[in-house]
This record gives sequence, C-alpha cells and structure tokens, in this order.
Amino acid sequence: MALTEFDLIHQFFSGMDASDHVLLGVGDDAAIIDITDGWVLQVSTDTVTEGVHFLPDCGPSDIAYRAVMTAASDLAAMGAAPRAMVLALSLPEPDTTWLEAFCTGLRAASADARLPLVGGDTTRGPLVVTVTVMGATPTDHSLLRSGAAPGDRLCVSGTLGDAAAGLALLRGDLVASNAADAAFLKARFLRPTARISLGESLRELATAAIDISDGLLADSTHLATKSGVALQIDHRLLPRSTAFSAVIDPAQQLGYVLSGGDDYELLFTLPHSADLPEGCTEIGRVVAGSGVSCDGMPTLRGYDHFGH
Amino acid sequence: MALTEFDLIHQFFSGMDASDHVLLGVGDDAAIIDITDGWVLQVSTDTVTEGVHFLPDCGPSDIAYRAVMTAASDLAAMGAAPRAMVLALSLPEPDTTWLEAFCTGLRAASADARLPLVGGDTTRGPLVVTVTVMGATPTDHSLLRSGAAPGDRLCVSGTLGDAAAGLALLRGDLVASNAADAAFLKARFLRPTARISLGESLRELATAAIDISDGLLADSTHLATKSGVALQIDHRLLPRSTAFSAVIDPAQQLGYVLSGGDDYELLFTLPHSADLPEGCTEIGRVVAGSGVSCDGMPTLRGYDHFGH
Repeated sequence: MALTEFDLIHQFFSGMDASDHVLLGVGDDAAIIDITDGWVLQVSTDTVTEGVHFLPDCGPSDIAYRAVMTAASDLAAMGAAPRAMVLALSLPEPDTTWLEAFCTGLRAASADARLPLVGGDTTRGPLVVTVTVMGATPTDHSLLRSGAAPGDRLCVSGTLGDAAAGLALLRGDLVASNAADAAFLKARFLRPTARISLGESLRELATAAIDISDGLLADSTHLATKSGVALQIDHRLLPRSTAFSAVIDPAQQLGYVLSGGDDYELLFTLPHSADLPEGCTEIGRVVAGSGVSCDGMPTLRGYDHFGH
Repeated sequence: MALTEFDLIHQFFSGMDASDHVLLGVGDDAAIIDITDGWVLQVSTDTVTEGVHFLPDCGPSDIAYRAVMTAASDLAAMGAAPRAMVLALSLPEPDTTWLEAFCTGLRAASADARLPLVGGDTTRGPLVVTVTVMGATPTDHSLLRSGAAPGDRLCVSGTLGDAAAGLALLRGDLVASNAADAAFLKARFLRPTARISLGESLRELATAAIDISDGLLADSTHLATKSGVALQIDHRLLPRSTAFSAVIDPAQQLGYVLSGGDDYELLFTLPHSADLPEGCTEIGRVVAGSGVSCDGMPTLRGYDHFGH
C-alpha cells in the first residue's frame, strides 16, 4: 500500500515513546505501560478546538505544548508520576510546515512533562486536539481535592494572574511598555508548566490539591466543597510576578490574581507542621465551614468577569 | 456559579463510572483505576469526525456506540481485560435530544464493552468524538501482532464483509430485497461488537492477533509483517453470513470479504494443537516467508478498491 498523508503524519509523531515504563510503544493495536505493582493508574483527558481555545497568533508549536501541559497539570494535581500520553488530532489538509511546528511543541512538552507519546489517531477535519494523559501513584496515596482539614495551611505554587495578563496582551486588550515583561506574561499563557515534580513531592505531604485552571477563586471553591471546609485567603499574601506587577494597573491586579485562569499552578493544603516547598507561598488557611473568603469577605461571585 | 450548558452535558455523561476497578470516578482532577498487581496497562485512542466517518443517517446513538466499540476492539486484539475509557467530545451548540440519543448509545457501549466512563472533556466546535480506552493484561501475556509462527492455524472470528455490505446499503450503492438482511448488515456497520471476551480467552491460547478494521488483507498483512511470516488464505474457508450471501452478488463477494473493512472481528493465529474457539473459523495457515496469499496468489494489491 502506498503511504497516505496520514501515514506521513504518524511518522512525524513517532520516536517519542521511549521510557522505562513503556513496555510496548506505537505499532501494535495498543501500547503497553507498566504502572508498577502497588500503584494505581491516574487518567485525564483534555480537548481544545480551533476558535474556542486558539488565538490567531497562537502558533502550532504553542498549541501542541499547551494541550499537553494543560492535560499534564491534572496529573500534577493528583500527585501522579507521569507514565504516558496519547494524542487524537483532527486537522484540515495536512501541511508539512504546520505539522513540523506542531511536532516541535509536542516533543518539547513530552520531554518537559515526562510523558512519552505512546499512541494516537489522526483524522481529517477541523482542528481539534485531544490529549489523554496517564500517570501513577502508590495505592491510597493520590492527592485528592477532598482531604483538607481545619488548621491546614492554604498554599499555592508560583505566581498568579500571569496567564490572564498574557492572554489580555495577546488579545490586544492590554499593552505593556516593557517587551520582556510582555514576553514573560504571554509565555505564561502560551507555554504553561504543569507542576509535575511539585505534585509528586506533595503526595506524602499535602492533604488536598487542585490545579488552577479556572482561576484561584473557582478552583479553591472546588477544593473547599470537596473537602467540606472553608478557605480563608489573605489578599496581601497572593504571589505576583515582577512582570505582572509592572504591567497590570494596581487597581486591577486583585481581579486578575483571584479570577484569571490558565496559570496551571497548584493550590494545596498542608498540615500546620509541614514545611512549605520551595517556590510556594502560603496564602491563607483552612477553617471549619464552607466557601471561600478573601480578607473576610465571601468571594463566590463578584470577581468572575474572567469566568469561563 | 450558574450551571453552564457544558455542566449539563457532564450530567448527561455521569453515572457510567461504576466498576470494581474504578477506585475514583468522575469529579477530581483525574480518575483512579486499579490495574491489578502483576498486570500492565493497555491504552489506545480513536477519533471520529463528522463527514469523514458519519453518514447522514448514522444517528447520535450509533455514533457513540460505534466510537466506543472501534476503540474497544483494539483492547480485544491485545487480549486485554477492559478497565475504563475517557471521552473527549467537540460538538456544536448542545441539543438535548441529540445528547440524550448520544448518551443512550454511549451507555449501551459502556455496558457491552465493560468500559466504565471515568472522565471526559467537552468543548464547542464541529462534531469530533475521541475515545481513549484502557485495559489490562498480566505482564508478558499481551496478544501481540508479532507472535505467529510457521505451522500455526490462521483463524478469524464471526463473518467477514458484513460491515462493508452494510455501508454500501447505507450509502445507497446497494439494494437488498429482504429487509431483515439489510437491517442485519447495516447494524454490522453501525453497531460493531468488539470481541472483548474472545480476546481475553485467546490471551493464553493464540500466538498473535489483530482486529480487522481495514479489511482482512490489509490487517493480515500487518500481522504477517510484524510476525515475519507468510499467511496463506483459502478463499473457500472465509466465513460469510447468510444475509451477506443473500445480498451480495456472488461475483463480488470475495472483494467484500477480503477488502471490506469495519467488521472488527479478530484475526489470530493458533498453535496447531489448540482448539478453535466457538464462533471462529480456520481460514488458512502460517508458513515461512512473507506477505499474504489467497489460494496461492499474492494479494497485496488487486483487491484494494475498498482501501482506506
């Protein structure tokens, strides 16, 4: 049989399946992955569609990188060790230049998130990218949303609001006077980092965790609800990057930090005695009750102008 | 936060995640699946797009059923015990009637293939359905394409050519005088059955296996290549259904049987001493060499008018 254009695509995506845990990569009816005895499988899927999720100047490399990282972020939030991913790609008439760029981003994300690409399916159609990620944790040692207890410290990794600021810059809704600041913030949106290693280190340490994809308030509300507790946030403690502080008007910063999505940082709760991991910030505490408050004010509504 | 229409969709798809092996279903950052100590994970993904894979009269229930079964068929071909699936759905403006029908097919396939739905993602866009399936086999006991040896019997489950005949009927390229025959053949295309239980029973019995999605010749060629053997098919042994024999002109039957895809039967090789499982047919044998021949004639080209 002659190679079809889709066979060629499969060649583009080959050679990313090497890993100690990949017992059989691409090429049979399914891939075979070692989960490790005494460990369980974690699985999550994310799909992105042209128009809804892609900006005009979001290139194919960023599309691939971002699709993998947003999916991988769910593994980080479970404390999972990454094992493998599969990719389903619907795309218009294959274009070699586009595919090469897509592949560059895919390869970088595969390496950065430690997720070998063990399978995929490609079909002609409008651009839709679906990434399914698989990880593993020791049985009964997953990091759930539901374990926070009153007295725990409420913590977050990295800085908040950067991706929302980057998105505003990409959309032209905002202008930065400093090019380096603009580049940093845009990259925070286009090239998020799943906090895989932090998640693994939190597995034996944190009582609950979630990744921040919809914004701090939305995601902390999920954690509070699942854990049956209240979360108190102190706005003065919320971590902001230098670029963010330089670009965003001070009066608008809190809105971005509380409700801007797409940062893919981890929000987690620590027992009072546990040390704060490097690069993380304590932003409040867990108390008995329900809901999320900021500086003593209930926050469920009011900041959701970034709501998805 | 108010329920969005996509939250409503998630409600449609909930309640399908119960299984002894699902330790945590929908509702956290990832689902948690027990793979069983001493077993390994099998994973495969399949994506279908409107226009390319769906006929105008292929209803939403069939779309869902077929998407799950075609993915599940890859697990059957590996001899895997089904564990779980995730669904990524891109769809236009949600329509309750459409979603209910889609859900009916999804639920039926989930039950029939023993694949609890443990996660998903929905986005607005053109209709694209991606199903990622996960199964498990004891370590080193997967059914690969690569184990066939000279002297083995070449076998197939069920009957061949039915789905291609059904597709021709659905397209109006063919007319059947008998309504029951037509319904049977159309259902073979619209509602394929992944041979999950057969695959599991073949795990300790067969030397190699593949599912027939692209047609007997195409898929037997994959098996021959991966195993480094030649396959000899005897056309008189090829199993045909009563409906198929009644509807398809005798002069055209061999083309359908050899090259019609979408049957999702299993093609497998058995040691000479092994008993043929119920519902299966011996169609030829494995010999030293390469390629696939039918009645002594090389078959690589010549019958590929159904080629995908």
